[in-house]
Amino acid sequence: MPLVYLTRKEQFNAAHKLVNPNWSDQENERVFGPCANKNWHGHNYGLWVTVKGHPNPDTGFVVDLKQLSTLIRSTVIDKLDHKNLNMDVPFMEGIFSSTENLAIQVWQQLQMPISELGCTLHSIRIAETERNSVEYFGD
Amino acid sequence: MPLVYLTRKEQFNAAHKLVNPNWSDQENERVFGPCANKNWHGHNYGLWVTVKGHPNPDTGFVVDLKQLSTLIRSTVIDKLDHKNLNMDVPFMEGIFSSTENLAIQVWQQLQMPISELGCTLHSIRIAETERNSVEYFGD
Amino acid sequence: MPLVYLTRKEQFNAAHKLVNPNWSDQENERVFGPCANKNWHGHNYGLWVTVKGHPNPDTGFVVDLKQLSTLIRSTVIDKLDHKNLNMDVPFMEGIFSSTENLAIQVWQQLQMPISELGCTLHSIRIAETERNSVEYFGD
Amino acid sequence: MPLVYLTRKEQFNAAHKLVNPNWSDQENERVFGPCANKNWHGHNYGLWVTVKGHPNPDTGFVVDLKQLSTLIRSTVIDKLDHKNLNMDVPFMEGIFSSTENLAIQVWQQLQMPISELGCTLHSIRIAETERNSVEYFGD
Amino acid sequence: MPLVYLTRKEQFNAAHKLVNPNWSDQENERVFGPCANKNWHGHNYGLWVTVKGHPNPDTGFVVDLKQLSTLIRSTVIDKLDHKNLNMDVPFMEGIFSSTENLAIQVWQQLQMPISELGCTLHSIRIAETERNSVEYFGD
Amino acid sequence: MPLVYLTRKEQFNAAHKLVNPNWSDQENERVFGPCANKNWHGHNYGLWVTVKGHPNPDTGFVVDLKQLSTLIRSTVIDKLDHKNLNMDVPFMEGIFSSTENLAIQVWQQLQMPISELGCTLHSIRIAETERNSVEYFGD
Repeated sequence: MPLVYLTRKEQFNAAHKLVNPNWSDQENERVFGPCANKNWHGHNYGLWVTVKGHPNPDTGFVVDLKQLSTLIRSTVIDKLDHKNLNMDVPFMEGIFSSTENLAIQVWQQLQMPISELGCTLHSIRIAETERNSVEYFGD
Repeated sequence: MPLVYLTRKEQFNAAHKLVNPNWSDQENERVFGPCANKNWHGHNYGLWVTVKGHPNPDTGFVVDLKQLSTLIRSTVIDKLDHKNLNMDVPFMEGIFSSTENLAIQVWQQLQMPISELGCTLHSIRIAETERNSVEYFGD
Repeated sequence: MPLVYLTRKEQFNAAHKLVNPNWSDQENERVFGPCANKNWHGHNYGLWVTVKGHPNPDTGFVVDLKQLSTLIRSTVIDKLDHKNLNMDVPFMEGIFSSTENLAIQVWQQLQMPISELGCTLHSIRIAETERNSVEYFGD
Repeated sequence: MPLVYLTRKEQFNAAHKLVNPNWSDQENERVFGPCANKNWHGHNYGLWVTVKGHPNPDTGFVVDLKQLSTLIRSTVIDKLDHKNLNMDVPFMEGIFSSTENLAIQVWQQLQMPISELGCTLHSIRIAETERNSVEYFGD
Repeated sequence: MPLVYLTRKEQFNAAHKLVNPNWSDQENERVFGPCANKNWHGHNYGLWVTVKGHPNPDTGFVVDLKQLSTLIRSTVIDKLDHKNLNMDVPFMEGIFSSTENLAIQVWQQLQMPISELGCTLHSIRIAETERNSVEYFGD
Repeated sequence: MPLVYLTRKEQFNAAHKLVNPNWSDQENERVFGPCANKNWHGHNYGLWVTVKGHPNPDTGFVVDLKQLSTLIRSTVIDKLDHKNLNMDVPFMEGIFSSTENLAIQVWQQLQMPISELGCTLHSIRIAETERNSVEYFGD
């Protein structure tokens, strides 16, 4: 049976800042530059969730896209969209809000519920800007 | 000798609907929602064909892009563009027109002729909308 | 008071064909080419609605984007998305489904309800593909 | 002498929230929804600055793009990028941070210095998301 | 009768350099920077041709897009694509290859033949990069 | 420790032509078509550099994007941007300027310096146009 990869794109608009609480203001500014601005900045984040599985013979679907989209929204988008990544997001509590860490945490949130839809999470890609993005495959 | 992957993007505009002929209208509408509209709907589909191979020392090409594009057009695009996926496409006959199945069938059509150009088909990616796409690697 | 233009983008996926019922099949195919395919084809249409008005001093808004988006969806998108432009759309009945005519009819549907939101419809732009689009200003 | 319009795109990443200080929390949430989140959210804003003028016979330029870009950056981008629109931006002080108001203020900042480059500011367009944008022509 | 604007996008890949033959090398480099590189550089140029007219009652078209595209290709694209703007293009002979001047010359080439298709040329927009574009309305 | 992939996009505008010096003009034109135009043509090339590594516990970064971007610019972009790939680029000397060969050479330039930043080069992707791109993984 053929194995097909399916990708759903979602997006969210959030504020954050990059500040290491163990460092002085000068050290934070030296390392993080304008990303350490104490009054925050923000992004339109793009999120690509890729799953893999065998198309269902009755529907031709690896997974019902409506179900997948609803799951992504209730599990992660509703908690990230129009929020502050450093202050408002339960699954980011105590975690530095780099795009890398965000992708790892989104993977943790989605892996189990996606397997319950009958397919397998393959990767989480998050773009912070048009020029910068990260991808995590669960390894 | 280095192995390089080359991707060519094509596109086609087609009509289709998602209806399982073994199901009642209600069941089709419950599962497929507006995609089951009996009078059809349609998309601008994007198709990305990725091949791999060793660059030819005389041309620097994995494959001549003009030849690859001509092959993709004659083999699949001419049969899909401005067509009805459920009614007009020989290689989709009797096959449910999900994007997943479409990617698998496009792979079947292209694998052999692409190998005759001297390179290897690596993947078929099809985007139905900006937010939904599938990819198939032949496994 | 400053006059600001605000644009909201929506989209819809629809089937259609271009056939003049007063013409022979040959004439239709000569003029419309593959767009006359009797079994339909389709597109992901992009719709840009531009309104103009004075920002409200209490909100800074020309119009509440949530209200505008809800209005566009209920007035036109719900009637166009996952539909057949030639068969399913009340406001396109008896009207040739060119993108030009579609833009004119969408303008007719939206002009009055948008003025009831307290701003003025400025233009309707519809893109059929990445390369082809039309714009109508109500003249 | 021909009149040509030239557009330069810049971008900036900023945090903001929409809260009317004369209103209760409930009223703010009712009107602005998630945009009123007290811990902020943010966007990758796109800024398009369009100027008009006659091409200089010696250079073929309406304006030197390097000079225009440097001016836009020093006058507005450096004050908006990686900032909080409600707290950090001198020219937004006391002004509600809707995209409409932002476009008007960016116009005010740029009109005079652009005229000193020998061309005329024609419009300011700001996109908050892929679906929402505003344009201001100085009227 | 309604007046509708229709835009067709084409593109071309060309080499050029910006050098004023009346200036010294130093002066050219001071004004044009890397664009004056004597061995050329190049771009994927985007060209948007906007025409206006009344939809034909028989077709719903302001103009047949296939005819318009064929005209644009034979009149300008075939002369610009995979060419050197300073050396190979008859209608750019003796004209400084700024994007501004290119837009004016493309207008000159297209205005008359487009009127012979039964519609009116409204504007020529050319993008040199994602961030820089010009538009000319014939004034 | 999780392994995360990070992609940085850069771009450059360059001229080139495809001509095999061992072939006659006719043979070059037969194989390369308009790409063999003796007066050059050019492109806006997109370059995507993907690295992989473990996020640093102090910063959450696989690599500091500012350092990565500075490295890519000084090592390859400054040598490619506004240049002629056949005449001006030291690391392309004597190498046929196909996109495939360009990707291989960019890999050679970046692999070592990127490893000195504490992460591993994963792939080089270069797009010559919206429809044509190549990717090289170092094998």
